[in-house]
Amino acid sequence: MQGKNKIAIYAGTFDPITLGHVDIIKRALKIFDRLIIAVGENPGKKPLFSVAERMQMIQQVTKGMKITVDSFHGLLVDYAKKKNSSILIRSLRAVSDFDYEFQMSILNRQLDSKIETVFLMTDKEYFFLSSGLAKDVAAKNGKLESMLPSLVAKKLRQKLGN
Amino acid sequence: MQGKNKIAIYAGTFDPITLGHVDIIKRALKIFDRLIIAVGENPGKKPLFSVAERMQMIQQVTKGMKITVDSFHGLLVDYAKKKNSSILIRSLRAVSDFDYEFQMSILNRQLDSKIETVFLMTDKEYFFLSSGLAKDVAAKNGKLESMLPSLVAKKLRQKLGN
Amino acid sequence: MQGKNKIAIYAGTFDPITLGHVDIIKRALKIFDRLIIAVGENPGKKPLFSVAERMQMIQQVTKGMKITVDSFHGLLVDYAKKKNSSILIRSLRAVSDFDYEFQMSILNRQLDSKIETVFLMTDKEYFFLSSGLAKDVAAKNGKLESMLPSLVAKKLRQKLGN
Amino acid sequence: MQGKNKIAIYAGTFDPITLGHVDIIKRALKIFDRLIIAVGENPGKKPLFSVAERMQMIQQVTKGMKITVDSFHGLLVDYAKKKNSSILIRSLRAVSDFDYEFQMSILNRQLDSKIETVFLMTDKEYFFLSSGLAKDVAAKNGKLESMLPSLVAKKLRQKLGN
Amino acid sequence: MQGKNKIAIYAGTFDPITLGHVDIIKRALKIFDRLIIAVGENPGKKPLFSVAERMQMIQQVTKGMKITVDSFHGLLVDYAKKKNSSILIRSLRAVSDFDYEFQMSILNRQLDSKIETVFLMTDKEYFFLSSGLAKDVAAKNGKLESMLPSLVAKKLRQKLGN
Amino acid sequence: MQGKNKIAIYAGTFDPITLGHVDIIKRALKIFDRLIIAVGENPGKKPLFSVAERMQMIQQVTKGMKITVDSFHGLLVDYAKKKNSSILIRSLRAVSDFDYEFQMSILNRQLDSKIETVFLMTDKEYFFLSSGLAKDVAAKNGKLESMLPSLVAKKLRQKLGN
Repeated sequence: MQGKNKIAIYAGTFDPITLGHVDIIKRALKIFDRLIIAVGENPGKKPLFSVAERMQMIQQVTKGMKITVDSFHGLLVDYAKKKNSSILIRSLRAVSDFDYEFQMSILNRQLDSKIETVFLMTDKEYFFLSSGLAKDVAAKNGKLESMLPSLVAKKLRQKLGN
Repeated sequence: MQGKNKIAIYAGTFDPITLGHVDIIKRALKIFDRLIIAVGENPGKKPLFSVAERMQMIQQVTKGMKITVDSFHGLLVDYAKKKNSSILIRSLRAVSDFDYEFQMSILNRQLDSKIETVFLMTDKEYFFLSSGLAKDVAAKNGKLESMLPSLVAKKLRQKLGN
Repeated sequence: MQGKNKIAIYAGTFDPITLGHVDIIKRALKIFDRLIIAVGENPGKKPLFSVAERMQMIQQVTKGMKITVDSFHGLLVDYAKKKNSSILIRSLRAVSDFDYEFQMSILNRQLDSKIETVFLMTDKEYFFLSSGLAKDVAAKNGKLESMLPSLVAKKLRQKLGN
Repeated sequence: MQGKNKIAIYAGTFDPITLGHVDIIKRALKIFDRLIIAVGENPGKKPLFSVAERMQMIQQVTKGMKITVDSFHGLLVDYAKKKNSSILIRSLRAVSDFDYEFQMSILNRQLDSKIETVFLMTDKEYFFLSSGLAKDVAAKNGKLESMLPSLVAKKLRQKLGN
Repeated sequence: MQGKNKIAIYAGTFDPITLGHVDIIKRALKIFDRLIIAVGENPGKKPLFSVAERMQMIQQVTKGMKITVDSFHGLLVDYAKKKNSSILIRSLRAVSDFDYEFQMSILNRQLDSKIETVFLMTDKEYFFLSSGLAKDVAAKNGKLESMLPSLVAKKLRQKLGN
Repeated sequence: MQGKNKIAIYAGTFDPITLGHVDIIKRALKIFDRLIIAVGENPGKKPLFSVAERMQMIQQVTKGMKITVDSFHGLLVDYAKKKNSSILIRSLRAVSDFDYEFQMSILNRQLDSKIETVFLMTDKEYFFLSSGLAKDVAAKNGKLESMLPSLVAKKLRQKLGN
């Protein structure tokens, strides 16, 4: 290992964190020594939960795992440099937008040639899951158990007032 | 790190190794401590080069890199277990067959739940490159410089007798 | 048949109903004994026509067909249960978003394991047609004959004031 | 129902029948009163099992289900007409070749306008399963339990001599 | 050539023009004698730059090229007829939305059967570039040199106030 | 125009020429002054018709059109240079293999930077048509009228002996 930088960053909106995200975090921890979960403060996106709420939920559902929860704004490559990391984790699902993933990875390499994107595949149980889908189901009073950690499901129901 | 298994396996047909393969090898070495390049002895595929020839070319073009070149037959997960590895490297290109990649990754997890597949993206110069394309161009006397290491291009031309 | 539930539900926004929708309705009637066209009251979507207007247009263009026109809100699987149906009709077009279709079908099965989604293919004339496209063309005063029933085209032009 | 033709045909190569095929058969039986499983005698395809072997395996794994097992050659639409059916069942998996499915459905409509193709989605457990994949795994002595009915797995192992 | 109409139209939002657009313009000029760059006045889209600003930037970065810069609203086929052109240029990138492209081309043919859409492929350097991506990077103070003509990059930074 | 090279080449296997190919030829003639239909002598592909037969059928079904029918082997870019052309025509259908098309276009540019590939879209009637599909249908005695020029349909039936 001697000096190699093995801090990986798993960045996203996490609005809120799903079981698919948790699955990727566990997989990443089998490969990387240190993992930062970085919540993006994207002013354009109008998330349901605040950055603080999203960070808190991540911390609660990853209790005991060797990760750091943080937030960032601006370019992800600039944040990675500041954190001394050159490895970005991305999740592959069946509903991944590959063109978008390629576009982002190429952009990030272009902005910083040292950056490497590592794609991990979620468990097939979560292949068709997204935060947006979970919010839709919650808004219509549907079951959330197979989508969200129970703590997150509860907070989502509170937030939506049902 | 203490005891974590960080040997990654990059398996394929490598008939012959292209600049895209070399690019993935270099990227994998930034992330993993040890890397095995495993040439598949797939009797069904009728490769142009023998396993021995393919292994020799890989060794020559990766001289000085910290990799091991090997061959295997049978299930890749069985080979991985024998080698004490649980990480498989796959290359993502724009011409990747994602359904195939998903199918294989899910199969491998099903056959051995400890196996993790890590997808790395080639440089965009190699997004549309494959061994098959290089062989087609070679068969029609086209330029191979942007596709193959020069040593491999030469061997391919010799093999095809032109 | 003896007790088998053969009521199928074709749910959608129908804002407004297109010739492609009518085509699917006719195909579904060749297969299922009873068909409910269920207009979704999706508050998030901001449709051009009200639910009542959309239902009326469907009724007018399907006059004489053995269908029931209804509206629903909340989860589609909950509506289906209330209607004693377990079959959902979905339309496949060349511009279908398959990932979305898979996501929804898997979700619906997860929410209610008895639910079956049946995909029918529109006539190839309507392979690239959607309500949104028809609205765009109408807004720019283009011809709508190959897209919408004439009654619907007229109402759309009235609504847009041109 | 009064005179409506509700015999559906599920045609394929079934070389051999997988758990994904069995899943589709069960789903089709929830919708259609009668179901014919039609094994294609495609001389170009060089199947591993003979038509008789494939038919026998289907009969064994669908024992007790209300289906008929048959074989056919030539155009599927001609076979359907002979069987007095106008409904073709196709399976949608995540690895479906949609362009091929569209091509075939359009062709079949073109050859016989009364033909309707009904697409059903397999359980997500079988989303990445195919007969070919099962044969590959069997050839390499891998586990087949999650892919094939046990009787079929046994016959496949016998056929491959391992 | 005698009387054949060889005026091609390259229509788009150009908000702002990227190096990918410039690349397509140069390629189109190798094939067509006259080229009109038509900036769409799409009220629904809320562009960052006004039509006048977008037209001026195009004129500046295409100085010396044999093109005409214009704007249009309404249906593109109506604009094309007015300009006596029947050839529409579209750009193919790896991130192209092919379904959308097919939908639009079929629509345009349906609205005017004489219209022909010609697809040209950008240089692979611009395969993953779009105006939207450039605006995102600019908003986060990233490098724009490989995305936009320098004059456009400067104007974009001014517009965003950074 | 003065010296600009406007000879376009539409290369393919044409085994045999379909109504979709004829459609593209007519569209290309609206854009280009001269068109060469170039039949590839691809020894690896084992066509049903000889190069001479394929060229004769093309000549017969394009009688009166301003095209030249020719054959070539080796790299298409080398053939184009010999013919003093830098424009390659490709057909876009719904069943196009875009990755393949991108791969080939990029390869051709790489082999000769002056080469430009122009993609035209077939009529939607031919969106799902290919020579291979027509041969399959012919082998099973199906109707070929909507797929092949009648002369070609006849020759195909003769060749297959039915």
